[in-house]
Amino acid sequence: MDKVVTFGELMLKLSPEGYGRLIQAHQLNVEYSGAEANVAVCLANFGLAVSFVTAVPDNVLGDAAINAMRHYGVEISNIIRKDGRLGIYFSEKGASQRPSKVVYDRGNSAIALATEIDFNWDAIFHDATWFHFTGITPALSDNAATLCLAACKAAKNKGLTISCDLNYRSKLWSREKSNKVMTELCQYVDICIANEADAADVFGIKAEQCDVNNGILNEQSYLSVAQQLQKKFGFKQVAITLRESISASDNNWSAILWDGDNIHTSCKYPIHLVDRIGGGDSFGAGLIYATMAGFDPQHALDFAVAASCLKQTIEGDFNLVTVDEVESLVKGNHSGRISR
Amino acid sequence: MDKVVTFGELMLKLSPEGYGRLIQAHQLNVEYSGAEANVAVCLANFGLAVSFVTAVPDNVLGDAAINAMRHYGVEISNIIRKDGRLGIYFSEKGASQRPSKVVYDRGNSAIALATEIDFNWDAIFHDATWFHFTGITPALSDNAATLCLAACKAAKNKGLTISCDLNYRSKLWSREKSNKVMTELCQYVDICIANEADAADVFGIKAEQCDVNNGILNEQSYLSVAQQLQKKFGFKQVAITLRESISASDNNWSAILWDGDNIHTSCKYPIHLVDRIGGGDSFGAGLIYATMAGFDPQHALDFAVAASCLKQTIEGDFNLVTVDEVESLVKGNHSGRISR
Amino acid sequence: MDKVVTFGELMLKLSPEGYGRLIQAHQLNVEYSGAEANVAVCLANFGLAVSFVTAVPDNVLGDAAINAMRHYGVEISNIIRKDGRLGIYFSEKGASQRPSKVVYDRGNSAIALATEIDFNWDAIFHDATWFHFTGITPALSDNAATLCLAACKAAKNKGLTISCDLNYRSKLWSREKSNKVMTELCQYVDICIANEADAADVFGIKAEQCDVNNGILNEQSYLSVAQQLQKKFGFKQVAITLRESISASDNNWSAILWDGDNIHTSCKYPIHLVDRIGGGDSFGAGLIYATMAGFDPQHALDFAVAASCLKQTIEGDFNLVTVDEVESLVKGNHSGRISR
Amino acid sequence: MDKVVTFGELMLKLSPEGYGRLIQAHQLNVEYSGAEANVAVCLANFGLAVSFVTAVPDNVLGDAAINAMRHYGVEISNIIRKDGRLGIYFSEKGASQRPSKVVYDRGNSAIALATEIDFNWDAIFHDATWFHFTGITPALSDNAATLCLAACKAAKNKGLTISCDLNYRSKLWSREKSNKVMTELCQYVDICIANEADAADVFGIKAEQCDVNNGILNEQSYLSVAQQLQKKFGFKQVAITLRESISASDNNWSAILWDGDNIHTSCKYPIHLVDRIGGGDSFGAGLIYATMAGFDPQHALDFAVAASCLKQTIEGDFNLVTVDEVESLVKGNHSGRISR
Amino acid sequence: MDKVVTFGELMLKLSPEGYGRLIQAHQLNVEYSGAEANVAVCLANFGLAVSFVTAVPDNVLGDAAINAMRHYGVEISNIIRKDGRLGIYFSEKGASQRPSKVVYDRGNSAIALATEIDFNWDAIFHDATWFHFTGITPALSDNAATLCLAACKAAKNKGLTISCDLNYRSKLWSREKSNKVMTELCQYVDICIANEADAADVFGIKAEQCDVNNGILNEQSYLSVAQQLQKKFGFKQVAITLRESISASDNNWSAILWDGDNIHTSCKYPIHLVDRIGGGDSFGAGLIYATMAGFDPQHALDFAVAASCLKQTIEGDFNLVTVDEVESLVKGNHSGRISR
Amino acid sequence: MDKVVTFGELMLKLSPEGYGRLIQAHQLNVEYSGAEANVAVCLANFGLAVSFVTAVPDNVLGDAAINAMRHYGVEISNIIRKDGRLGIYFSEKGASQRPSKVVYDRGNSAIALATEIDFNWDAIFHDATWFHFTGITPALSDNAATLCLAACKAAKNKGLTISCDLNYRSKLWSREKSNKVMTELCQYVDICIANEADAADVFGIKAEQCDVNNGILNEQSYLSVAQQLQKKFGFKQVAITLRESISASDNNWSAILWDGDNIHTSCKYPIHLVDRIGGGDSFGAGLIYATMAGFDPQHALDFAVAASCLKQTIEGDFNLVTVDEVESLVKGNHSGRISR
Repeated sequence: MDKVVTFGELMLKLSPEGYGRLIQAHQLNVEYSGAEANVAVCLANFGLAVSFVTAVPDNVLGDAAINAMRHYGVEISNIIRKDGRLGIYFSEKGASQRPSKVVYDRGNSAIALATEIDFNWDAIFHDATWFHFTGITPALSDNAATLCLAACKAAKNKGLTISCDLNYRSKLWSREKSNKVMTELCQYVDICIANEADAADVFGIKAEQCDVNNGILNEQSYLSVAQQLQKKFGFKQVAITLRESISASDNNWSAILWDGDNIHTSCKYPIHLVDRIGGGDSFGAGLIYATMAGFDPQHALDFAVAASCLKQTIEGDFNLVTVDEVESLVKGNHSGRISR
Repeated sequence: MDKVVTFGELMLKLSPEGYGRLIQAHQLNVEYSGAEANVAVCLANFGLAVSFVTAVPDNVLGDAAINAMRHYGVEISNIIRKDGRLGIYFSEKGASQRPSKVVYDRGNSAIALATEIDFNWDAIFHDATWFHFTGITPALSDNAATLCLAACKAAKNKGLTISCDLNYRSKLWSREKSNKVMTELCQYVDICIANEADAADVFGIKAEQCDVNNGILNEQSYLSVAQQLQKKFGFKQVAITLRESISASDNNWSAILWDGDNIHTSCKYPIHLVDRIGGGDSFGAGLIYATMAGFDPQHALDFAVAASCLKQTIEGDFNLVTVDEVESLVKGNHSGRISR
Repeated sequence: MDKVVTFGELMLKLSPEGYGRLIQAHQLNVEYSGAEANVAVCLANFGLAVSFVTAVPDNVLGDAAINAMRHYGVEISNIIRKDGRLGIYFSEKGASQRPSKVVYDRGNSAIALATEIDFNWDAIFHDATWFHFTGITPALSDNAATLCLAACKAAKNKGLTISCDLNYRSKLWSREKSNKVMTELCQYVDICIANEADAADVFGIKAEQCDVNNGILNEQSYLSVAQQLQKKFGFKQVAITLRESISASDNNWSAILWDGDNIHTSCKYPIHLVDRIGGGDSFGAGLIYATMAGFDPQHALDFAVAASCLKQTIEGDFNLVTVDEVESLVKGNHSGRISR
Repeated sequence: MDKVVTFGELMLKLSPEGYGRLIQAHQLNVEYSGAEANVAVCLANFGLAVSFVTAVPDNVLGDAAINAMRHYGVEISNIIRKDGRLGIYFSEKGASQRPSKVVYDRGNSAIALATEIDFNWDAIFHDATWFHFTGITPALSDNAATLCLAACKAAKNKGLTISCDLNYRSKLWSREKSNKVMTELCQYVDICIANEADAADVFGIKAEQCDVNNGILNEQSYLSVAQQLQKKFGFKQVAITLRESISASDNNWSAILWDGDNIHTSCKYPIHLVDRIGGGDSFGAGLIYATMAGFDPQHALDFAVAASCLKQTIEGDFNLVTVDEVESLVKGNHSGRISR
Repeated sequence: MDKVVTFGELMLKLSPEGYGRLIQAHQLNVEYSGAEANVAVCLANFGLAVSFVTAVPDNVLGDAAINAMRHYGVEISNIIRKDGRLGIYFSEKGASQRPSKVVYDRGNSAIALATEIDFNWDAIFHDATWFHFTGITPALSDNAATLCLAACKAAKNKGLTISCDLNYRSKLWSREKSNKVMTELCQYVDICIANEADAADVFGIKAEQCDVNNGILNEQSYLSVAQQLQKKFGFKQVAITLRESISASDNNWSAILWDGDNIHTSCKYPIHLVDRIGGGDSFGAGLIYATMAGFDPQHALDFAVAASCLKQTIEGDFNLVTVDEVESLVKGNHSGRISR
Repeated sequence: MDKVVTFGELMLKLSPEGYGRLIQAHQLNVEYSGAEANVAVCLANFGLAVSFVTAVPDNVLGDAAINAMRHYGVEISNIIRKDGRLGIYFSEKGASQRPSKVVYDRGNSAIALATEIDFNWDAIFHDATWFHFTGITPALSDNAATLCLAACKAAKNKGLTISCDLNYRSKLWSREKSNKVMTELCQYVDICIANEADAADVFGIKAEQCDVNNGILNEQSYLSVAQQLQKKFGFKQVAITLRESISASDNNWSAILWDGDNIHTSCKYPIHLVDRIGGGDSFGAGLIYATMAGFDPQHALDFAVAASCLKQTIEGDFNLVTVDEVESLVKGNHSGRISR
């Protein structure tokens, strides 16, 4: 069976129950997550072999983080133990006009401190066919950016398909730094994934007639964005998720896929959100799964959008739906009737 | 005071908190419920005398199940203790595009194993005026179907009004089996209750121009369904609930009632769901209560629809609203303002 | 720095988790709140000096109530300990067509039993510039009404600005009693705050062409209400919040402000409610803060409406948002996008 | 079957989870209890018919309190609805050197305000053979004391056995008042139950060479106390529970029974406490059950001590053990081995 | 690395929080466990490769059960999906004189219905060096007993070390049946593990001068039991755990090991129990780990006893301690001082 | 009123509920604590004015940490906001033979990064009479040690009494480093507080014939330790707490006080632990309170030991007992009887 490798940070996520704010919290829910870890779990959950590459400290938090990956079937033999912290992010869920908030406490993490000698990419990619990372990983530290580059080169050498979700995080690096680093990394990327704001943030490619902050998105404009991205880097495919934020409780969700020849557009799901975090990651995972499964581009896009729509109806960063559940939504069963 | 008897299975219901999925659950909420038990609790809650007939095992789960009935005032002297399990159903709540899911683990239950010698229907109906069951009970086992028939005959002999909610469950029996058994039982039924899909599932009587799975219902078509049902079995009344499933979070809810002479239609409530399970049961209970209370058919229908609307704004299978609360909604107070 | 004094009851609030009903509750969440306490917390949270005046019993409940005020920075040196109970209110959250419910158990509270010798208003107002109370305080007891009058007189003597939220509570007193007492107290008030029903309940000043119970409000009519209130009592400003109750889950929220010369209207926020209790209190606090901060009336109104909109997306009676968060909403960021 | 009637207050009990203190509590567990209610539940749990007599307010708290009684099979037709509050008691569990604490908020309860016209004792005792009350009931108010007297007279007239647990509560009345009232009521009592301190508190009959506060009890001295009590009031039986308080975590538990002719002593259980509240009530219930079941005095005492020992290993005020579980402990199975 | 295979049932365990009884439970904690699964988790936790063999249903409960194994590093490729239920056991924790209780609902489980064609033992044992099962597995059904025999034969053929914990369960089979089946299976066993009661229950070999139910154990007598067992079946080693049950809260814990030549005895740990379930399983796992690690018999015994002592201070059936933590206790650090 | 100043780190403490291990945790309880913060809360709780000096980051975690101090009445005007993290410590409670564990994640905290320009000690000590710190503060960083020295000098100049709890933490610094730094700081200290191991760890002054790890302590030997400490640094008083660790569940607790002239010894409390963390801090706070209140040395010691005994029966790091509760225990009420 084909195997996917993802590479990134694995963090402790601490969040209040329900719609509680951090300032009110007497208890915090514990999860272990991260963009690339989420992709790995989604893929394992769909039945693929997937190995997650990271570094965690050699303490009980590192142990628990590894267990969380193992729980859903992610292969963990490429997770190394190293000095440094386990990064933490505190997250509170927004509602209606109140946005979700994230507080990062991820400095000096084991993965940010890792260096090239920590990972043997040739060995890691030995039996793999796909490599996935996101723009968060190189943003962690210069070391991490160097590691990403090494990974991309090794993956390319071995003939793996490389996908990258731009995933711009303003709290981790500036647009300028991001532009510089991602420009180099994107030379190696086959499939580029972005959300409605990433291309502008990282590469300054803006969608015309759109107001991302007010949830006004124009599908046509994003086609142009996709094409510009593809032209600039020679990606085989560019997929862009389009989140229309009506409020923190209700979003519309769709995506487009440009495969170099044709533009594919998905239906638009009006989502009454349970938890939107991990939505983009599950889109990426859906696209990887569908592509590896040989779906045609339209089906692949539809699968990825449906998968990530369902993620947003689930608590936590992981997309714990089955392939059957996704396909049922792809086929149009969106009315939520109980099967019994 | 008049007394109602309901007959069916009493199960342990285990469900994750909030919108958690079963695959994620570290804790499960405990309830004891079942369609006919839910009707009994609703009726007791409205102040009627009601006896629930079932069999549960002679262990602590059986004890707890009985306590749950007693808690809300249901009379439990006709619950027998018997070998066999307490059936369990695992339930997770859907949201938005993700449907609710139910996993049955109800094989070999005490009630499925019960036989005619376990219940003395003449004694059970001694001081009762109404008998209610649903299509779930005969679906449990051939024994249970036989018990239903015996109960219907005894109830008819004693002159009780008999109501039946068709409640088709595809996980319990086939349409063919259901058709055969329910056709015989319906000979004895005075008031037939169904949801938007039951008549088609059980008797093949389909509503024209409707797409149940996509929440497209046509009130006129269901009038015809009701009339066909009434003609086929000679029911005194046929009531059909019409759930328009927009998503797992939002449903429209209304019902029609055909009393042989006139069709009555209710207003349609757009419900932002808290928990839709038990909605149909509380409609049945509302109709029984209203009929026993002597409401005219339109008022009875309005009461039943309002009661079951409110149920769906409450956690758990039981409809813990007062008659005053239902009547307040019937009178049009649906804006949710606090009284203080 | 300027200091605000608020005066009222501090209660123990007990409420089931989520949408649970009181009849189902095995656990109750503990808060300590009250209209004027909520205003105090909001103001302290915005960074103002604020002293809350009340009486609580000298037991652990009184201790805990004081701690809750202190927690968010409210100055508590004017809270006295006295015989009597800590008032309790039980509260359950409504959903969709089911309204929220409040059960009062606040008889014989320490504050209701307090008398004029318990509070030295001159000392309390020593370094204060603003006094705020609501119509709930004089409704607690004749003693409390007398205390309110004494406070108003002392505040007026010292040149404080006095604001009053009419806050009519039918479970505490009749319209007639309210009319009589509030008419006297309002002689001293500079800024009058009311919701869409208060002016009619307390002073019989009704908004034309409105149906409060069905969420049909007419902004024009409320302009007239504001002007009539202002004319009757000589208020410097009259602010009226307009809650359009679509259901217990969804409300539209806006307000108007009449400053004697001009009418100011806010935008209208469609709120998917997390917890609406404390909405009015946070509006009052927003208006006081904005006025003390020297905002112009339109900005002050916008700030107050945005602050109270956000409150309704937060669990609990307190408005735990920062000034920055409110201003961000005032500037139009209402789409709930995560900052990360 | 014989039926027992108990009479007393039914309160809302609010307590923090585990060993949390009230000052720390963000949530409180909800129970409905009271000394005589606890006895009723224990007896119903043992399979006896038992009717609990009280008054509760006509609100949701009263409803929930009644449901709690019904849950465990107590007959509730003699619970009346009346103006007044539902009494509340806040309770925190001690540990080691820290004692448990109770905060009463039970003034103006419906039962304290009830009067003779509220209860028809002849009807209440119609088919009963036993009446039980405790010293808490007459301590609630003068009305309640008068009700107790009326109940005793009616019970005596009808030939019921009357048992009374002295249950002195210093927070409810003085020793002098208690002495006066209990002296009159005890004229009617057949079986007197007391703990190691009650006889001294109520009647000034002290056990020699004992230091109750330091857990030093002398069985011989209590024999004398029992005999003095019996001589003074002509009780048929006097039972005294002997709690040796080593700490709030560990108690020794035993009892003596004087039947007029012979003294009976139980074994002494060293209990690692889960929850000691309700221990005395479950002793009373055990003695009543055993006596009604015709056990000889020694067996009755052993049963009552074992039952109340087990209660103290259970969370909550109710003794949710079966007769079989009690008898197993009576037979010496105290090593806590699992049966599987 | 050496690999262990364990074979048995994987169940859903449902238990109330803390010392709550099942009759009181509104929530149940979810675990997935079973004697042989517990051994597997302990071994994986100690760093060994371990594969767990079982059958679970192809539904979400089966998925979750598998995830629970994977979580702690157990290899799950030999868990098959099959018709049948996931067995359930309800468990409540005892305290002081109240024993823990277990309610089984494990009939018709997938593993009880599995047959020889479901497992290819030669493949399963391909790279394994140790096979472990317990007396629970053959007690599940005749099929399961047949599977055990096939596994033993295959393991013996391949030269694996076979260990068996007698684990008699009276709720699953009679002593007679057990005797017959275990006598056959024990022919293949190298290392026999038993608790203080198993040898008597299964083989009628009683320890003299002991009273298991009252926690009176005689080490010398158990030496004789071990020797008799060894003589009867030719075991290489016999290990017997000795639980002195003082109460459900406090147990003394030790063990002996007879290696055919010498008797080894451990120190005795007085345990203030957190959760005793899984104690025996963690002893077995400790012994297997220590033996595979090449510890001498005394060290192996000490390790196994210390490991299983620590298990009983941990919530849940799994022994989540590290080898270092066990060795620290072996070295005498039992005073529970914090390291910081 | 006299005022105390304490100086140290304020951390986020995250701990699993009950006896759960970190590796198992799905939720963590949130507290904000630290040795000197705990002392501040204890003192405020006893009614003293106390200002806590620290630095926390300017984010929601810093806000929440400050609120936690304010909650219990600690004065927070000397808490500064600064770059850097809020230190975190993860803590799990031991039981029986399993020790409690602490995992520090406190690098790069705001307080560790603070420098002399951040605190104006003369202003901070303006109206104070007592300064308290512990050996943890200088262990945080060289900066922090420098700050401690500056604080000591300023306090000495202003004539404050200075108390220091040695509080050696091997995870923060070596014995050598500790020795060097503490030797300098102790020149300024009036009252030295230590536990049974600190003097040996920091100054190499060992108690003869003691085995701290096995809970064997010799009071006489500690008298000598106290005298050596006093001689070396000229302390006015030396107090040493003596924890005899029987297990993680049971400790004996006592202390000695050497006042230069006389040795005072306390009674020894056998504590069945609820939470031992914060025990030493509450001893220090008790001693400071008692000394400031003018208690004679023996009474001061008894008060401090009783206060810290009670702390260990309370969940969390703060000692939420009243002076009355402590004095009641001092007077010998240790049997845990309920007052009701």
